[in-house]
Amino acid sequence: MTTFIEQKTISSELAEQMVRAAKEKARELGIAINAAIVDAGGNLVAFSRMDHAPLLSINIAQDKAYTAAAFGLPTHEWYDLIKDQPSLKTGIVHTKRLTVFGGGYPVRCDGQVAGGIGVSGGSVEEDQACCEAALSLLADKAI
Amino acid sequence: MTTFIEQKTISSELAEQMVRAAKEKARELGIAINAAIVDAGGNLVAFSRMDHAPLLSINIAQDKAYTAAAFGLPTHEWYDLIKDQPSLKTGIVHTKRLTVFGGGYPVRCDGQVAGGIGVSGGSVEEDQACCEAALSLLADKAI
Amino acid sequence: MTTFIEQKTISSELAEQMVRAAKEKARELGIAINAAIVDAGGNLVAFSRMDHAPLLSINIAQDKAYTAAAFGLPTHEWYDLIKDQPSLKTGIVHTKRLTVFGGGYPVRCDGQVAGGIGVSGGSVEEDQACCEAALSLLADKAI
Amino acid sequence: MTTFIEQKTISSELAEQMVRAAKEKARELGIAINAAIVDAGGNLVAFSRMDHAPLLSINIAQDKAYTAAAFGLPTHEWYDLIKDQPSLKTGIVHTKRLTVFGGGYPVRCDGQVAGGIGVSGGSVEEDQACCEAALSLLADKAI
Repeated sequence: MTTFIEQKTISSELAEQMVRAAKEKARELGIAINAAIVDAGGNLVAFSRMDHAPLLSINIAQDKAYTAAAFGLPTHEWYDLIKDQPSLKTGIVHTKRLTVFGGGYPVRCDGQVAGGIGVSGGSVEEDQACCEAALSLLADKAI
Repeated sequence: MTTFIEQKTISSELAEQMVRAAKEKARELGIAINAAIVDAGGNLVAFSRMDHAPLLSINIAQDKAYTAAAFGLPTHEWYDLIKDQPSLKTGIVHTKRLTVFGGGYPVRCDGQVAGGIGVSGGSVEEDQACCEAALSLLADKAI
Repeated sequence: MTTFIEQKTISSELAEQMVRAAKEKARELGIAINAAIVDAGGNLVAFSRMDHAPLLSINIAQDKAYTAAAFGLPTHEWYDLIKDQPSLKTGIVHTKRLTVFGGGYPVRCDGQVAGGIGVSGGSVEEDQACCEAALSLLADKAI
Repeated sequence: MTTFIEQKTISSELAEQMVRAAKEKARELGIAINAAIVDAGGNLVAFSRMDHAPLLSINIAQDKAYTAAAFGLPTHEWYDLIKDQPSLKTGIVHTKRLTVFGGGYPVRCDGQVAGGIGVSGGSVEEDQACCEAALSLLADKAI
C-alpha cells in the first residue's frame, strides 16, 4: 500500500527571492504590484505589497497564486480552456478563488507542482512579466 | 393533514461504493479526481480525493453533488435552461454553490431525489463518465 | 447492502401549523418572535417574523432550529453537556450555527429526528414556551 | 539556498483505510460518526458520514482534522495551552476552523506532520478512541 507521497514544496527562502524578483521587474516597468507565493498545498508562504499598489489586488494576487498551484496551470491558460464551452465559460468562473486571467503560474520542481506565484497591480501583460522574472530564478543554475 | 413525508436518502454504504466506482473509472481514464456524495438534504456523506487530483476541485465536486441533489437535475442540464434567458445566464450563476456545468447527477430512488454525486478533476466529459460509472451501480441488480 | 434509508421529514403543512402555534403563544405572552422550522436535513421549511420582532433574532431562530435537527437535542440541553468540560465549554460554542441556549427543539416522528423548531425574540423561557406550544400539536391526536 | 522542501503527505489509500478503521471502532462503541482526513496542506482527502451520524459534526470532523494538521498538535492539547492565559482562552478560540477539544490528531511520517484526522459524533473520549484506532494502522507493520 502507498502510505505517504513525497511532495516537493517551495521553501520560504525561494519564495522570498521570487517575490523580490517580481518587485524588481515591477520597478523596471514603473508599476506597483502585489506579489504572492503559495506552497504545494495552496497555503500562503510569502506576500508583498509595494507602496501605492492597489488594495484590490491584494486578494487577486493571492487567488492567482492559489489557482495556479491548485490546478497546475498558468491562470492565462484557463480562458482558452473554457472559451468554447459555454457552460464552463458561464459557470466555472464563479468557483471560489479561481482566476481565469493572466498573472498566476505554478512553480514546479522536477515536473511536479510545488507551489504557485501570483502578481496583480499592472496590466495582465505586466503582471505576467513580473511572474516570469520570478520564475526565471528557477532555471538559474545559481540557486 | 400531511404531517411527515417519507424520504429515501442514500446510505453511507452505497455512497462509499459509488465513490469507489467513480475512482475506478478515473483510473481507467488515466485521470485523478475528487468525488463527493451528498444525501437528500444536500449534506456530505462521502468524499475522496485521489493522489495528485487538483485541489481546486475539492469544492467543485462537492458543489456539483449539492446542486444535483438540491435541484434534482444533472448539472449539465442547467446551461440549456438558462442560455436563452440573458438575465438568468448573467445572474443565477452567482447563486451560492450552484454549478451549471457537467459532472453532477442526482441519485434517485423510486423516482425521487435521494442524494447527489459530483466529480471534478478531468474534463467535463471525463467527470461525467466517472459519475455514470457510479450511477450504473444503481441499475445493477446485485445491490 | 443497505442502499437507501427511509427518513421521515416534516411536511410544509405541519411546519406552517407549528409556526402558527408558536406565534399564537407569543401573542398570549405579549411578545414578538421569529419562528423557524427546518427539515430532517437541516434545511429551512417555514419561517415567520412577527411585526416588531427583533431583527437580530432572524438568524438565531434559524440556527436554533438547525442545531436541534442537526444534533437531535433541544438546544437548552447543550449547556449541561459542556459546562463541566472546560475544553468543550470554551471551544465548541464557536461551531458555526451551534446554539447552546434554550429555544430550539428537534421534531421527532416515531422517535427519529424529522426536523427542528427554533424561536427567538423573547426570554429563553418565553422562546421555549412558544416552541412547546408548537410541539404540542404533535401529541394532538387531531393531526 | 534551500529551494524546495521534501514533504510527506498522506496518500488517498491510507486516508481511506484510516476512515474505515475509525468507523469500525465507532460501530464497536455503538456510535455513528463523521470522519475526515486532510493532507499535509490541510486539504480534504477523505470523508465519511455514517448513517444517522449528526449533521452538525460534518464540519466539526473536518475542522478537527485541519486543526491537527495545521498546527501539529492533537486538538485536545490545545485547552491546556490556553487555559491559564485568559486572553488566549477568550480570543484564540475565535480563530477560523481552530478546534480546541479532543478528536483530532496529526498524522505523522518520520516525525513530520503529513496530514490530520478528525472524528466527531460521539463524546470526546469516543471520538478520540476512533481516531486512535485509525492511527494504530500507522504502527502496524502490515501497511
